[in-house]
Amino acid sequence: MDSLMMDYQLTLTGILRRAKEVYPERELVTRLEDGSLHRYTYGEFYQRVLKLMQVLRAQGVKPGDRVATFAWNHARHLELYFAVPCLGAVLHTLNIRLFPDQLSYIAEHAEDQIIFADSNLLSQLEEVQDELKTVRQFVVMDDSGTLPETTLSPVAEYESLLAAQEAVEAFPDLNEQAPAAMCYTSGTTGNPKGVVYSHRALYLHSMCACMNDVLAIKEADVILPMTSMFHANCWGIPYAAVMTGAKMVFPGPNPHSAELVDLIEREKVTFCSGVPTIWNMLYQYLQTNPRNVSSLSNIVCGGSAVPKSLMQKFDETYGVTITQLWGMTELTPLGTVSQLKNDMMEWGADEQYAMRGKQGVPVPGVEVRILDNDGKPQPWDGESIGELCVRGPWVASAYYNNPASAASFTEDGWFRTGDVATMDTRSFMQIADRTKDLIKSGGEWISSVEMENALMAHPDILEAAVVARPDDQWDERPMAYVVPVEGAGDRLTDEVLYDFLLEHFAKWQVPYKGDYRVIDAVPKTSVGKFDKKVLRQQYLESRAS
Amino acid sequence: MDSLMMDYQLTLTGILRRAKEVYPERELVTRLEDGSLHRYTYGEFYQRVLKLMQVLRAQGVKPGDRVATFAWNHARHLELYFAVPCLGAVLHTLNIRLFPDQLSYIAEHAEDQIIFADSNLLSQLEEVQDELKTVRQFVVMDDSGTLPETTLSPVAEYESLLAAQEAVEAFPDLNEQAPAAMCYTSGTTGNPKGVVYSHRALYLHSMCACMNDVLAIKEADVILPMTSMFHANCWGIPYAAVMTGAKMVFPGPNPHSAELVDLIEREKVTFCSGVPTIWNMLYQYLQTNPRNVSSLSNIVCGGSAVPKSLMQKFDETYGVTITQLWGMTELTPLGTVSQLKNDMMEWGADEQYAMRGKQGVPVPGVEVRILDNDGKPQPWDGESIGELCVRGPWVASAYYNNPASAASFTEDGWFRTGDVATMDTRSFMQIADRTKDLIKSGGEWISSVEMENALMAHPDILEAAVVARPDDQWDERPMAYVVPVEGAGDRLTDEVLYDFLLEHFAKWQVPYKGDYRVIDAVPKTSVGKFDKKVLRQQYLESRAS
Repeated sequence: MDSLMMDYQLTLTGILRRAKEVYPERELVTRLEDGSLHRYTYGEFYQRVLKLMQVLRAQGVKPGDRVATFAWNHARHLELYFAVPCLGAVLHTLNIRLFPDQLSYIAEHAEDQIIFADSNLLSQLEEVQDELKTVRQFVVMDDSGTLPETTLSPVAEYESLLAAQEAVEAFPDLNEQAPAAMCYTSGTTGNPKGVVYSHRALYLHSMCACMNDVLAIKEADVILPMTSMFHANCWGIPYAAVMTGAKMVFPGPNPHSAELVDLIEREKVTFCSGVPTIWNMLYQYLQTNPRNVSSLSNIVCGGSAVPKSLMQKFDETYGVTITQLWGMTELTPLGTVSQLKNDMMEWGADEQYAMRGKQGVPVPGVEVRILDNDGKPQPWDGESIGELCVRGPWVASAYYNNPASAASFTEDGWFRTGDVATMDTRSFMQIADRTKDLIKSGGEWISSVEMENALMAHPDILEAAVVARPDDQWDERPMAYVVPVEGAGDRLTDEVLYDFLLEHFAKWQVPYKGDYRVIDAVPKTSVGKFDKKVLRQQYLESRAS
Repeated sequence: MDSLMMDYQLTLTGILRRAKEVYPERELVTRLEDGSLHRYTYGEFYQRVLKLMQVLRAQGVKPGDRVATFAWNHARHLELYFAVPCLGAVLHTLNIRLFPDQLSYIAEHAEDQIIFADSNLLSQLEEVQDELKTVRQFVVMDDSGTLPETTLSPVAEYESLLAAQEAVEAFPDLNEQAPAAMCYTSGTTGNPKGVVYSHRALYLHSMCACMNDVLAIKEADVILPMTSMFHANCWGIPYAAVMTGAKMVFPGPNPHSAELVDLIEREKVTFCSGVPTIWNMLYQYLQTNPRNVSSLSNIVCGGSAVPKSLMQKFDETYGVTITQLWGMTELTPLGTVSQLKNDMMEWGADEQYAMRGKQGVPVPGVEVRILDNDGKPQPWDGESIGELCVRGPWVASAYYNNPASAASFTEDGWFRTGDVATMDTRSFMQIADRTKDLIKSGGEWISSVEMENALMAHPDILEAAVVARPDDQWDERPMAYVVPVEGAGDRLTDEVLYDFLLEHFAKWQVPYKGDYRVIDAVPKTSVGKFDKKVLRQQYLESRAS
C-alpha cells in the first residue's frame, strides 16, 4: 500500500508566503549607514521580493544560476535570501572578510553570474574585478538609491531596478531538492570548499530552529543577528524568523558594540546571536557604557567554545542565559545545542556550567557518532574521544565540484567534521579540538581548548589561545597567548599564568615559563574564529629571525 | 546544478533512535488498570520496541501490512506506535468507541491482519469476530501478562511474546514516503474514510508540534494525553514527545476526572490535551474536589470550538492558558493554533478572548484558503465565509480505497475540509460551522456554533448544542439544547434563555420560546464531538410520535 499524503514540496517559497499571509504586519528594521533606522513590514517585504524576482527574470537569471551577495546584514540582503531561491536560482553569499585571492577563487569556482554588493564594499570587488570572469552584472545596494562611482561594469543600482518592476505573484513550481543557496567553508587550510543547500534542507532547518528545545524562535521574538548573513545562512536564523514571523533587526554596515547595544535597547531585542568574541566585546563595552538590555531573553553563541566566564558574566550581570551551539557550514549550520535538561535545572551552578560549557545534544534531525581511527563508534562515556561524524537532512553529502570531497565522508555516508569530540552519558557533545589543534607532548594529548577555557576564566584575561610549538624533547609543547582586559597586561606575568594553570592541569601539561605571550588580540579568521595558524606562523618566524 | 545535501529519510525510526540516544533516562508512566503506576525509561522503552519488532517479524508481518490496535492510552500502545511503522508495516488505530458494524467495516476495509487489543476491551472484538475476515492473529495486552479467557482465535499474549524475543537492533531502510499509520475519520455521515499517513508526514508534524508558536512541546514537559491514541495520532503528541524526550504520563483504561486530576498532581503534569467536554468535566470535578494542579502550564484543546467561558475558568482559577487548536484526521491532525500574537498581549481581556475563541493561524507547513461555491478565494476580512481548504506535507491527498475520494479535493489539489470558515485580517481562522450545521432561516444563515458559544457562557449552562429543525414558514429554525450545571436545571426556562440570547443575537436569529430543551448530556460521537445528527433525529422522532 502507498501512503496518501500530499506531495507538498518544502521550499523557501512556502516560508515566504507564510510570512506575508500570517504575519503581514510584523516589522523588519535595518540600521542604515547614516545611523538612522529603516523599517517596513513583512507585507511590504513580500511585495519587494516579488519585484526583485522580476528584476532577476529581466536579467535573464535561469534555474540553477548562481547569484551572489557581497553584503552586510540588512533587509535588502534578506530580500535576496528569498527572491533568488524562490526563482529557482542559487543564492551564493560571498564572505566580505576574505582576502582578495580567496574571494576571486570562490566567485569563479561557484561561477557567479551576478553580484549584489553593498556600496561601501565596492573597493574590495574593484580590486579583483579582472578575476571575476563569470560575473556578467554587478548590482549596487546603496541606502540613497543612487549609483556611486565605480570601475565595476556592467553595473546597476538596486532600488532603480526594483522601481522599474511590478510586483508579480508568479512562483515557479520548485522541487524541494532543488539547490537554493551555497556557501564556502572558510577552512584554515586548503582551498575553500563549496556547500550547496537544498530548499528542503533550509526548510527543515528552519523548523528545527523554532523548536522549543533548539533556538525556540517565535513570533514574539525581536531578533538581532550579530552573526553574518554571508556566513552559513546566518546560522539559519533569518529563514526561521520569517517562517515564524519574528521581528528582525539588522545591524547594517560594520556595527560596533555601541551600535549593537543601542539597537538592543531601542528595539527591545529578545534574541541575539554571535560568536564569543563579540559577546565579550559587548560585555566590556557595557561595563563602561551601561545601557538597558533587559529585553534580552535568549543569547545564542557559537563558532568557538563559549567560556564559562562569559556565560557567568551575562547570568550574573544581566540575568540572561547564553546558550551554546555547535554547527558548521556543512550543517546549514545547526548540529548541537547546549540546553540543560530538565533534571539539571536542580543542579548546583558549577555542575550546570560544566554542562553548558559543552556543545550540547544533537538537535532533532541530526545524528551523531564519534569514530576512532578505524571508524569504530566510541562509547558515550564523556572520556572516549573520536572524530565527530554526523548525518541528517541538512548535512552536506559532498563539496561542490571538488574531487577531494570523498575524504570528508565515511564509506557509509556520514560527514567527517574534522573535530575531535567526546559524548557524555547525558548525550552532551564536547569538542576536544580540531584534529590539528590537539597538542601532542611526549606522546600524550593536551587539549588546547580546555586550556583556553581555563585561562579565559582568569579575571584579567579577555581572550586566550593555546597552540603547539615544536619541541626537540617532547615533540610538541603548548604555548599560551593571552589578551588582557584593559590595564591588566602588566599583571599577566609568566609566573602568574603558570601558577594559575597549575590549579587546573597536570604539571606536564602546563606551558613552561617562557612560553606565555601577552598580545593585543587573538588573530581571527574571516568568520571570527581564532586563527591559530597565524599564531603558529608568528612563533616560527620569531624563532627564525 | 544539483543540491549537495544528504538523502536522509525522515522516518519514525529517526525519532525512536533519538529518544534512546539523547534522552534514555527520561520516563514514561502508565496508570494501570489496578490504579498503580508503571514507569520505565525511554532506554527501556527502546529495548522493548526492538523486541516487539522481532515479535512482528516472527508473526510474518511484511512491509505495508496493516497491524491494528484496539486500546486505551498506555505505554504498550506507544511501543506499537513505533515498532509497527519502524518495521515498514502500517499501524492502524481502531476506535474503541465505534458501533460494532462500523468497527468490523473499518477493520475489513483496512484489511487488518493482526489486532493488538486491551484485555478489558475484548468483548467488543468478540462480538464482531466473525466479521473480521482478514484478521489472522489477535494479541491481548494485559497488565498481569496472562491471557484472559476469550473466544478470539488465534490469540496470544503481549508480554509472553516479548519475553520470547531478543532485542535486535535491525531497522529496515525505509523511504520517508512509506506508509506508517492509518486512521479512519469518524464522520457523522456515510462510511468512515481511511487516511494513510507517511513517515514523512508524521516526522514533519512532530517537528511542527515542537515549534515554539505551535504546541511548544519540549524535553522538560510532562505530557498527559487525554486525547485518545486511537484518534488522529493522538493529535501527533506522542511522536512529538518522543522526538524531544518529553516525559509522558498515560492515563490507561477508562480514566475519569478523579484519576486524571490525580495523575496531574502526582506526576506534576505540565502539558495536557483534551476536547472541551473533558476540560469542562475536569473543571467541575475540581470545584468539589480541590487538588493541586499548579504544575499545568499548557493546556491544548480542540475537537470542537472552545467556549470563552472554559478558557476564562482556567485563566481565573488556575492561571493556566487553554490554547485552542483546530485539526482533522486528514491533517495528521494539526491545522491551526490560536496563540495570541505579540501585540495582542497588550489587548484587553475581551479582545483577547475574542481572538482565542477563534481557531487560530495556520501552523507552519499548512496553507489555508477559504473558497466560495465557485472555488474563488475569499478575502481575509473576518466576514467573508467560504469552505476551508488546506494543503501541506501532512494533509491527505486521497482516502484509502475510496472511489468518492475525489469529491473531497479541489482540482488543483487542495483538501476540502467541509468546514465553513472565515479568516480575519490578523490571519485567525474561525470555523463558522460544518456546512451541514449552518441553519438557513428565511434565506439567511444562522451560525449554530456562535449561538452555542453564547449559551455556554451562561453561568447555569455546562454545554449547549444548537441544531436546525424544519419550519414551514422559514424553511429552518434553530433549536437550542442545554445541559445545566448541577442543580440549575429548573432555572433554565425558555424565557430566561430567550432573553439571554437576545443580548447577543438579532431577534430573528434567536430560537422561539418553545424551541429550548434542557437535557442531561449532549450526545457525542466516538471521538467526543457533539453529535447533532442524534439531536436532529430525536427531534424528528418526537414530532412523529
